[in-house]
Amino acid sequence: MSTIDTIFRLDPQLAADTHCVGDFDLSRVLLMDDARFPWLILVPRRPHLRELIELPRDAQHELLDEINRCAHVLHALEKPDKLNIAALGNVVAQLHVHVVARQREDAAWPRPVWGVGTRVAYEPAALAQRIARLRTALQLPATA
Amino acid sequence: MSTIDTIFRLDPQLAADTHCVGDFDLSRVLLMDDARFPWLILVPRRPHLRELIELPRDAQHELLDEINRCAHVLHALEKPDKLNIAALGNVVAQLHVHVVARQREDAAWPRPVWGVGTRVAYEPAALAQRIARLRTALQLPATA
Repeated sequence: MSTIDTIFRLDPQLAADTHCVGDFDLSRVLLMDDARFPWLILVPRRPHLRELIELPRDAQHELLDEINRCAHVLHALEKPDKLNIAALGNVVAQLHVHVVARQREDAAWPRPVWGVGTRVAYEPAALAQRIARLRTALQLPATA
Repeated sequence: MSTIDTIFRLDPQLAADTHCVGDFDLSRVLLMDDARFPWLILVPRRPHLRELIELPRDAQHELLDEINRCAHVLHALEKPDKLNIAALGNVVAQLHVHVVARQREDAAWPRPVWGVGTRVAYEPAALAQRIARLRTALQLPATA
């Protein structure tokens, strides 16, 4: 007898490529472990989600509000030339939304960030500092 | 004496690369003139918009609802393996949202569609047919 899986599980590839910043009401907030770009990823904590349109309308609006919190914080902290916001999922199917602060002099400009060059992992001190800064700005508890 | 420009004007590059499908309450719906990908673009008809976060919350939710209409229609018509939804704007700064139906055998999979290969313009008959089909499915008047 099988049981229906109703528990949210973060995709292993997303887990391997990111660090957890904390949890909003709906989404887990991840920091992409790539020091070349200030890059957050939101993952709605619902099981088996692939497409935005699978979420009920209210939850979509909640997700959009959480995208806004991330976008406002990256805008304030990074003063980017442009924000990039995207739900692609061609490689990792689990619904996740990228919010990336782009600069004209960054490693991919003006191209999108995905698949460009090689990821540059954060140094431990820089990582701890960035996550602390993001948690404060996003008003997320450190224990999340 | 200068006057403040309060009129929505579609970016010339967007106009050159697309065909108008019609107008939702908030957004103009464009079809990217690239027969390789079923690819819609929504442009909120407000002047001087660059970032999603510049839109008031209500208008953002309205935009999300219009993104949903496009996503549902592309999902129904194309049966894609994945939908890609993105607001980038690194090349064309005017706020615009891509909704693209992706297939595992398409010309860019699994990469994003932007900047991949060369755009393949629709043949006139195929273009007319596709726009008519989209207008019907999106419930947009043919005169828009």
